[in-house]
Amino acid sequence: MQTTLTARYTTNGNPATVIELAEEPLAAPADGQLLVRMLCAPVNPADINMVEGTYGVKAALPAVGGNEGVGRVAAAGGNVSGFTVGDLVKPPGARGTWRQALTVPAAECVKLPASLTAEQAAMLYVNPPTAWRMLHDFVTLADGEWIIQNAANSAVGRCVIQIAHALGWRTINLVRRADVVNELAQLGGDIVSVETPDTFKQIKTWTGGNNPRLALNAVGGDSAGTLSKSLGAGGQLITYGGMSKQPIKLATGPLIFKDLSYRGFWMTRWYATHSATERDEMYTHLAAQCAVGQLTIPVEKTYPLTEIKTALNTAQQTSRGGKILLDLR
Amino acid sequence: MQTTLTARYTTNGNPATVIELAEEPLAAPADGQLLVRMLCAPVNPADINMVEGTYGVKAALPAVGGNEGVGRVAAAGGNVSGFTVGDLVKPPGARGTWRQALTVPAAECVKLPASLTAEQAAMLYVNPPTAWRMLHDFVTLADGEWIIQNAANSAVGRCVIQIAHALGWRTINLVRRADVVNELAQLGGDIVSVETPDTFKQIKTWTGGNNPRLALNAVGGDSAGTLSKSLGAGGQLITYGGMSKQPIKLATGPLIFKDLSYRGFWMTRWYATHSATERDEMYTHLAAQCAVGQLTIPVEKTYPLTEIKTALNTAQQTSRGGKILLDLR
Repeated sequence: MQTTLTARYTTNGNPATVIELAEEPLAAPADGQLLVRMLCAPVNPADINMVEGTYGVKAALPAVGGNEGVGRVAAAGGNVSGFTVGDLVKPPGARGTWRQALTVPAAECVKLPASLTAEQAAMLYVNPPTAWRMLHDFVTLADGEWIIQNAANSAVGRCVIQIAHALGWRTINLVRRADVVNELAQLGGDIVSVETPDTFKQIKTWTGGNNPRLALNAVGGDSAGTLSKSLGAGGQLITYGGMSKQPIKLATGPLIFKDLSYRGFWMTRWYATHSATERDEMYTHLAAQCAVGQLTIPVEKTYPLTEIKTALNTAQQTSRGGKILLDLR
Repeated sequence: MQTTLTARYTTNGNPATVIELAEEPLAAPADGQLLVRMLCAPVNPADINMVEGTYGVKAALPAVGGNEGVGRVAAAGGNVSGFTVGDLVKPPGARGTWRQALTVPAAECVKLPASLTAEQAAMLYVNPPTAWRMLHDFVTLADGEWIIQNAANSAVGRCVIQIAHALGWRTINLVRRADVVNELAQLGGDIVSVETPDTFKQIKTWTGGNNPRLALNAVGGDSAGTLSKSLGAGGQLITYGGMSKQPIKLATGPLIFKDLSYRGFWMTRWYATHSATERDEMYTHLAAQCAVGQLTIPVEKTYPLTEIKTALNTAQQTSRGGKILLDLR
């Protein structure tokens, strides 16, 4: 039997320590299966947390790292419909994407728009959909309405800026570092500001009193408090990450009298509870934005799979400006 | 012109200090108006907070205290339809209910079911509807499903127990004092327990693993944390009070991965945003439960209006077992 190179872990821990390169068997595709040759996969914070064992779901060990990524169909077994050789596909995250190839049931693969580049396609599954859903599923936003977010420099944050800008909504973007302000403004961020304890006092001026009804939080702690204090009546604070590892504090008064809501968002649950039709409709929108340059995710550096440990070390540095990608060809 | 005795305040502060008895003019009812002779009014925590100036809405001063209460139509002006002399009515809270009589537009009055006693009717506007709405408007509860609440000994808490029991839902009731446990169990509370930091560990045993999806919080702080940790996937914590004056802390992980929601509920907003038809439908349900003894609010003591300061002092003691009422006849 053929084998394929994978980045595997047999125990949870620091990814740069526990991830090891290993050959795994690669079967020829049986009935209903595809052989997928991987092209590209990102290293996302959720991937890191999953290897650490600190994520919301735990992989059965040993496991191959990575949840996102893209490949091309290299061969198909019998009784496969809807896929042909050469199709751009996203294999199931549960099998690990940091690998050169895999044989997998076609039913577990998602066909991606052919117009995408390998790099765009590799990063389409988690961050742009997270931004898309948070902008569409909680508050019905009017034309020109304001949204506020922290961690605006993150991959999701950049997608929020670009999608909101393309759809005619305006964003207040809070960051920790002054050196990213210009870049995010050029992406389409209407207000980009380094967060301070007094930031919430500026919201009325920035928005002309139309305080946001949607706040997107990936930090927690004091920064979530800033977002919360910025919300107008009926506003919702949606949490999709907790970088500060500090809890969110809710004052009772605004919760009751301003009718605020605090909810979580997890893209994995959205995929598990929505149809392929809904998913593909979203992909069509996102691919169209990619095609005209309205949606880009900066790539800091691309590493071959053989340099996975260097890639993981780089991905864990918080000061980097773009995504770390693995080239799996 | 006739006058009527009122309990009035001209400045915000401690109610027992700033509330003074005062005669106010009482006009004969003009076109579209009713003359209402008051029967009975409760002293609610929200009334206290409004006199203090710490409530979500502030009264224009001078103001008459009290927001809830009931009277009977004593006379009607011309062009009044839907009301006749003798009808049990709730006058508008904004004019203050701690008074012997008032002349008021009929359009601002709510006719109450004639089957109610004056005491039941006086307490129908705030607490039973708060319990009813929180049990109906957030989570669609299945037969026998569990609900958890703190401040179970409060007026709203007692209504939650009784309404849930009558409708076939089960309640976990957290209290601070062991001496109310038997009483709440007799009201229909399925589990009644003095809250400790380990309470959340018992939830699985109590519910057979069917953790509640609805938690009702009037305390905040650590107690809200206990409720939060008790919730099952997709659960909602609804806050309608903050007795501890401590914020609620939300851990990011459960918010995202357990899909929890944190929302506020304010009966005043519900009334402002729903139709008279929806309101009257709810009153019909509540009056029917009152009629068959399925919904009672214990009255600790009834004071005449002339003893308002004693009534206010008693109402501010947290250890009391029932409502303080004013007899306004």
